[in-house]
Amino acid sequence: MNVKLVLEYDGTDFHGWQFQPGLRTVQGVIEERLGKMLGEPVRLIGAGRTDAGVHALGQVAHFHTGSRLSPDVIQRGLNALLPPDVAVLRSETVLDAFHARFDARSRCYRYRISRRRRAVGRAYAWSVSYSLDVEAMQRAAQAFPGRQSFASFCNVASERSGYICHVTACSWSAHDEDLFFEVASDRFLRGMVRTMVGTLLEVGRGKMSVEAVQDALRAQDRRASRLTAPAHGLCLVRVDYDKDEP
Amino acid sequence: MNVKLVLEYDGTDFHGWQFQPGLRTVQGVIEERLGKMLGEPVRLIGAGRTDAGVHALGQVAHFHTGSRLSPDVIQRGLNALLPPDVAVLRSETVLDAFHARFDARSRCYRYRISRRRRAVGRAYAWSVSYSLDVEAMQRAAQAFPGRQSFASFCNVASERSGYICHVTACSWSAHDEDLFFEVASDRFLRGMVRTMVGTLLEVGRGKMSVEAVQDALRAQDRRASRLTAPAHGLCLVRVDYDKDEP
Repeated sequence: MNVKLVLEYDGTDFHGWQFQPGLRTVQGVIEERLGKMLGEPVRLIGAGRTDAGVHALGQVAHFHTGSRLSPDVIQRGLNALLPPDVAVLRSETVLDAFHARFDARSRCYRYRISRRRRAVGRAYAWSVSYSLDVEAMQRAAQAFPGRQSFASFCNVASERSGYICHVTACSWSAHDEDLFFEVASDRFLRGMVRTMVGTLLEVGRGKMSVEAVQDALRAQDRRASRLTAPAHGLCLVRVDYDKDEP
Repeated sequence: MNVKLVLEYDGTDFHGWQFQPGLRTVQGVIEERLGKMLGEPVRLIGAGRTDAGVHALGQVAHFHTGSRLSPDVIQRGLNALLPPDVAVLRSETVLDAFHARFDARSRCYRYRISRRRRAVGRAYAWSVSYSLDVEAMQRAAQAFPGRQSFASFCNVASERSGYICHVTACSWSAHDEDLFFEVASDRFLRGMVRTMVGTLLEVGRGKMSVEAVQDALRAQDRRASRLTAPAHGLCLVRVDYDKDEP
């Protein structure tokens, strides 16, 4: 059967999602415990390959197994075996054809900035001490929605499947002393959200104009964008599938 | 001069507020950095002596110094010297007579319960897997407000200044999968909030009646109350002073 999992993890002590020999990764840790529980090697496919230090509140993954354990038993068994920084939030059987990565219609990421030094929750927000023009950051963010190349906003030289992404929503919101940047897209390039945030912060502190962000996008060259915001402020919030998917 | 500080800390890696030789405590860490910065030994008095593992979003403390540094310079200097799990949120000079502990009119604590396994933010919430009757917990909490003895709700045999506390507010609220218990009082006994929460959870899971909580209070005996909730769900939110205080 094919099992879909919804996962939460604290990225602080992981070298990212993807399996790497000898490193503690989310995929590696879950595959190992799943394999132990089911008595067979398991390959877990995640919807988003989050970088080292990035958190998730709603990562989605799937795996095929010969086991006949119910999804509920798998969820409770896994939660009993997993370390405290990973949790299985939901588990269900899906059609054999379901693929967590290829079938995902949209991913939503959230970046959290704290406008003061922070002790409680400091693992989940980037503390920024300089003052920010949020209104300018909001205007600059309007360059991103739409179907276009984000070659200027990724941190690797080549992406096998090109640089075109369809960003469907993108905005800043303020809650007390925190700023949240939420962005949804059909796909994301490596480092894309963190480069967006780093660039918009340059706008917020007056070092870059709103127009310069549009120019950077058009340049289709990584050197046109600016700072990359640190990983620990970023969180994969949600992965959406077509409604007729199970 | 007399300086008042408002402090935030993540209690996870501290043996509580109060100085203890050879242990990492909040008071100890701040006194040491303050002494280094000001070039004189400093005694820091906190409003609430939080236990090991308890967090603070608004602890208040004061210290006397011969230094003439401005409060703003002290705040920035301290924040540069302090480890990442403590932050000075505000700093101001106050009348010489101001005493953070004796002048506090009210303290407010918040306890956070998560009704599911939690990876992100697990250091700040107690995850409880059994189902809870929040309405019964809310009714049982109504036993606490008022001026009365809390001898049944503390974890030491004797308090020098008696067991009478004046609880001015006390309630549960739900946000998504989290429950928050907020309680304000002129003073708190050791372990008082955690014993309140532990006892109310016994009510929530049907192991204790609402009336039994009232009986436990009247018994004035620690053995009459139940579980003590773990420290990491608790946070000192705020300390209030009379308005005419500086």
